Amino acid sequence: VVLAGGRGTRFWPLSRRARPKQCLSLDGGPTLLARAIARSGLPPARVLVVTSAEVADAVRAEAGAAHVLVEPSGRGTAPAIAWAAREVRARGGDRMVVLPADHVVSDETAFRRALGAAWTAADAGALVTLGIRPTRAETGFGWIEPEGAAGGSLPVRRFLEKPPQEVAERLLAGGTALWNAGIFVWTLDALEAALAAWLPRTVAALDAVDAGSPLAEAWCDLDAISIDHGVLERAAPGGRVAVVPVACGWSDVGAWSALAEVLPVGEGGVVRAEAVVALRAADNVVHAPGRLVALADVEGLVVVDTPDVLLVTTRASAQSVRALVEEVERRGWVRYT
Amino acid sequence: VVLAGGRGTRFWPLSRRARPKQCLSLDGGPTLLARAIARSGLPPARVLVVTSAEVADAVRAEAGAAHVLVEPSGRGTAPAIAWAAREVRARGGDRMVVLPADHVVSDETAFRRALGAAWTAADAGALVTLGIRPTRAETGFGWIEPEGAAGGSLPVRRFLEKPPQEVAERLLAGGTALWNAGIFVWTLDALEAALAAWLPRTVAALDAVDAGSPLAEAWCDLDAISIDHGVLERAAPGGRVAVVPVACGWSDVGAWSALAEVLPVGEGGVVRAEAVVALRAADNVVHAPGRLVALADVEGLVVVDTPDVLLVTTRASAQSVRALVEEVERRGWVRYT
Repeated sequence: VVLAGGRGTRFWPLSRRARPKQCLSLDGGPTLLARAIARSGLPPARVLVVTSAEVADAVRAEAGAAHVLVEPSGRGTAPAIAWAAREVRARGGDRMVVLPADHVVSDETAFRRALGAAWTAADAGALVTLGIRPTRAETGFGWIEPEGAAGGSLPVRRFLEKPPQEVAERLLAGGTALWNAGIFVWTLDALEAALAAWLPRTVAALDAVDAGSPLAEAWCDLDAISIDHGVLERAAPGGRVAVVPVACGWSDVGAWSALAEVLPVGEGGVVRAEAVVALRAADNVVHAPGRLVALADVEGLVVVDTPDVLLVTTRASAQSVRALVEEVERRGWVRYT
Repeated sequence: VVLAGGRGTRFWPLSRRARPKQCLSLDGGPTLLARAIARSGLPPARVLVVTSAEVADAVRAEAGAAHVLVEPSGRGTAPAIAWAAREVRARGGDRMVVLPADHVVSDETAFRRALGAAWTAADAGALVTLGIRPTRAETGFGWIEPEGAAGGSLPVRRFLEKPPQEVAERLLAGGTALWNAGIFVWTLDALEAALAAWLPRTVAALDAVDAGSPLAEAWCDLDAISIDHGVLERAAPGGRVAVVPVACGWSDVGAWSALAEVLPVGEGGVVRAEAVVALRAADNVVHAPGRLVALADVEGLVVVDTPDVLLVTTRASAQSVRALVEEVERRGWVRYT
């Protein structure tokens, strides 16, 4: 089950309504969504992509309409996963891996090895999450504290969502805490038991759908919550949640500035272009396929050139791309979004 | 006579071998060359454009082949003007105005008024230069110190080429010194007398051409020098040079950063684009026709977007565009120049 609901506004102007972030290629190869599907290790017939109406056409074009579930509205990952689990069951499956559609993994071999360990732990009854070995004291992610440090799969002691800076630094220094990347593995039996225990309204709403209620109606009755808050954090104290640590060159590529984590650095920085010439220029992120990019005396900039929009900002303020898109929408220039 | 020899490398990537700076429109209207021709106040049949082989095709397309003189090589403005003067005489003229092809004048009315005063002074026998009222202590220009301060036309006391900063500041503070913009008016009689006095080799070489020598051969025998150094600076002490002060919104638009002097400042700076959205962005110069330009947290940048080249630099280092072009040529990427 690949979760592909968002637009990835922070990758505007490359990401658009008609071509959300997960349908982009950041390096000229397959799209992020195609790679997430391949990363599952499953044949395409056993893949489901959950998405939103806004970007459904683009996702269907990528994944095939038969494999796409369109949520009536975004209500968090718990409803999406619970609904997808019913669909997996209906199609004859008995276990599932949940993958975000718009992340990057540079070491797919390490990822597959971790996924294998996760399937094993899931078959033993655990709700399993992959835990990314952290590389910085990131305060924007959820962190996982495991019991112990060694082993392919460890019980989760607790989850820490978006910790303050000093906590993130302590977690990084401790050497055992991991990032929660939203990658989960479990049997349907284990998930259903957990949903029944922690999200009974969701179970009841989906039962109503199975009994013939319209999805759009039932959708408003289920719990609007993430699977982390709704299930995993509650199940962890009972020892039912396990984490498989992995270092696989993972990035959520949450903004243009993150391209520097996942693409090779060359003359002038990370530059996707036909050619580059740079004088006293470094640490820039430039996306201008087909062009000669000429840089002089600039550092830490983000420049994205598309046929109808040119974005210029800094790596430090790459998050403000979202505000730019909101401003463009506010002015009614919808064709640019 | 319009001098249109250069490529205007510092306006790369908009300026190219096939489309030098003088053949560009900076504001979407007529090109700089077309405006220089119109600024002469003369009918097109009485205009001559002197240019170089490198950009001759582009200049001919703009000015008409019958009105274009192509120099065998660039040897400074004195040979260009001396040769053009012979051609003016041959076509029945008896006086001339010399205009650079790639400058901007925003107040054409003030310019025409000054040009009228210059024709009058020239008819009285002077070698006349237009003196631009300075707006800053510019060290990259030539300055003119007139005798006195009031009057439509003043005798020139002396020329100061590219003065040091402290001299430029004193000249600006003095209130009477002017910039030498390379705009000259004189009768052919006065020019020929001055050339005979100061540049006899040039006169002899052009005499040889008139007698049948090939121009390319004679061209190497004439004085490679500017008209300022070769004639005006030498003639000034004799009281034969006059200056007509003018404030006409003049700019030599010597680099991208200078666009801020001649184009209106709007959201984000001087932005030529289909639309602009800017958050905490100012003082930028952006050229991206047809695009929405989105700026966040950037200041003092120069960004020029063309179909095959994207330039990103700062206003402070706009002069380094020349070095970028040299580097592009050094790498053999001639198609981009």
